[in-house]
Amino acid sequence: MAEYTLYTNPMSRGRIARWALHEVDARYDQVIVEYGPRESKPAAFLKANPMAKVPTLVHHHACHDHVVTECAAICHYLAEMHPDAGLLPEAHEKADYFRYLFFVAGPFEQASISQRMGWSSDDPQAQRMLGFGSFELAVDALETMLAGRDYVCGGRFTAADIYVGAQVIWGVDFDTLPRRDTFVAYAERVKQRVAYRIADTIDEELIAERGPQG
Amino acid sequence: MAEYTLYTNPMSRGRIARWALHEVDARYDQVIVEYGPRESKPAAFLKANPMAKVPTLVHHHACHDHVVTECAAICHYLAEMHPDAGLLPEAHEKADYFRYLFFVAGPFEQASISQRMGWSSDDPQAQRMLGFGSFELAVDALETMLAGRDYVCGGRFTAADIYVGAQVIWGVDFDTLPRRDTFVAYAERVKQRVAYRIADTIDEELIAERGPQG
Repeated sequence: MAEYTLYTNPMSRGRIARWALHEVDARYDQVIVEYGPRESKPAAFLKANPMAKVPTLVHHHACHDHVVTECAAICHYLAEMHPDAGLLPEAHEKADYFRYLFFVAGPFEQASISQRMGWSSDDPQAQRMLGFGSFELAVDALETMLAGRDYVCGGRFTAADIYVGAQVIWGVDFDTLPRRDTFVAYAERVKQRVAYRIADTIDEELIAERGPQG
Repeated sequence: MAEYTLYTNPMSRGRIARWALHEVDARYDQVIVEYGPRESKPAAFLKANPMAKVPTLVHHHACHDHVVTECAAICHYLAEMHPDAGLLPEAHEKADYFRYLFFVAGPFEQASISQRMGWSSDDPQAQRMLGFGSFELAVDALETMLAGRDYVCGGRFTAADIYVGAQVIWGVDFDTLPRRDTFVAYAERVKQRVAYRIADTIDEELIAERGPQG
């Protein structure tokens, strides 16, 4: 058995977890979880993640398994388990690293999804409760964060760039982010990662194998 | 100057950051940021956090400042900066620690806020995109996570319990979470932390000083 089992679907956020696995050069088995009713899904998957969400990563460790869910957590966890990959932040990078990992996993993701659902509020008190304020405010904050630097922590790629990078790549590719120069340049930069291109190839291949029915 | 500056408001999520500062016994100055138009807020605060959100933590470190925003990031960052406080996860606790920190900061927070805004969807495809599925699913997942254990990582309080604990305390106190035994017991348990009680006293006192007008 490989060190990890990745429950994923090529059409899901699971692509982020696959990218992270390749960044740390981990050995993993994959289990493709198809969309459909809960009872159609593998029992081991449902046990690992009662929310029945992909990606779910199981780390087979000594005599017991550790389960990690949430894409940002998976990226950081793999960086921690494989320190030689050099994806963990140095002391002076930790503020940016955790700030922006949680900003994108929290308020930015929430702003982005609410925007796609057509959910918003002009009421200042509601905006305060929302945490992200408005979609425009969250997008501007992301731009400010990435402006004038190559990566989340400055000049060096870290595990935070897997998660933030994936969000920006998809935002640019699927037009859910405005095509501002900062976003386009950052997306192009992180797409050059070998691990990104390998993971992307595997998931695209899985989609192609399914044919036009998906 | 103290090691940290905390921009906060006693009626905000800033209470989580104050609790974390007291858990690690950090020296900090506080700046109370009142609600109101952007231009009424301190310039140093707007510079540190263009989203103009509290809490914002500034770490005055050597010859430059580090800024941390997002409550969960602040809790973890302080644990990293003050390892002697013993709030970081051990190797075998890291999966639960990061999984649940990101679960609560991401899907759970999103589910909880969407519920308060009256935003939901019954469409399976939309639920998949939403990440949290539905409020009920997110609440059940939180209950499963806390059932049969005293803290996020099992038998020991870590920095994850500051963030998750604050969310559960408020959920129980303000009836935004169902009053299930697991939630009530966990909230009571984390409320016993001396640092929680000190931080809570300070914020309640600040509110009382303002009088009935808030």
